[in-house]
Amino acid sequence: MNTTNLIGYSAALLTTIAFVPQALHSLKTRDLSGISLPMYSLFSLGVLGWIIYGFMIDSLPIMAANSITLILACTVLYLKIKHK
Amino acid sequence: MNTTNLIGYSAALLTTIAFVPQALHSLKTRDLSGISLPMYSLFSLGVLGWIIYGFMIDSLPIMAANSITLILACTVLYLKIKHK
Repeated sequence: MNTTNLIGYSAALLTTIAFVPQALHSLKTRDLSGISLPMYSLFSLGVLGWIIYGFMIDSLPIMAANSITLILACTVLYLKIKHK
Repeated sequence: MNTTNLIGYSAALLTTIAFVPQALHSLKTRDLSGISLPMYSLFSLGVLGWIIYGFMIDSLPIMAANSITLILACTVLYLKIKHK
């Protein structure tokens, strides 16, 4: 793998797994007051857009990474709506 | 613009502007207890990786969108560290 791809995959990995600690924190503490509902609504919709885009350009990495992100972002979104 | 590109740009726009309401919410309320520090640390590092990747493949949209996201994510990260 060349340096460019390595940086791209590392960036994708980081911005995907970043939502793991947030989802766990929200699940554990149920402290959602500081979480922005518009953020997670827009973000989840955008990530869904990325999955569709990945499907259309036939890119498995885009579909896979964004599917994981969507599950995590929707977990936070669900908790936010529930604890509103 | 074809449908595929339109979906891609819409997805990029949504996942970028999503951080605007979160940054504003955090700035206004200073309620950061529900925000995960590891999330914003990993995410900011990942977005920086995307900017470097965009620079290496000479993609202005990737550099531009991720620069905006980095400013917004770092705002939340700074507030989280400050209010820890």
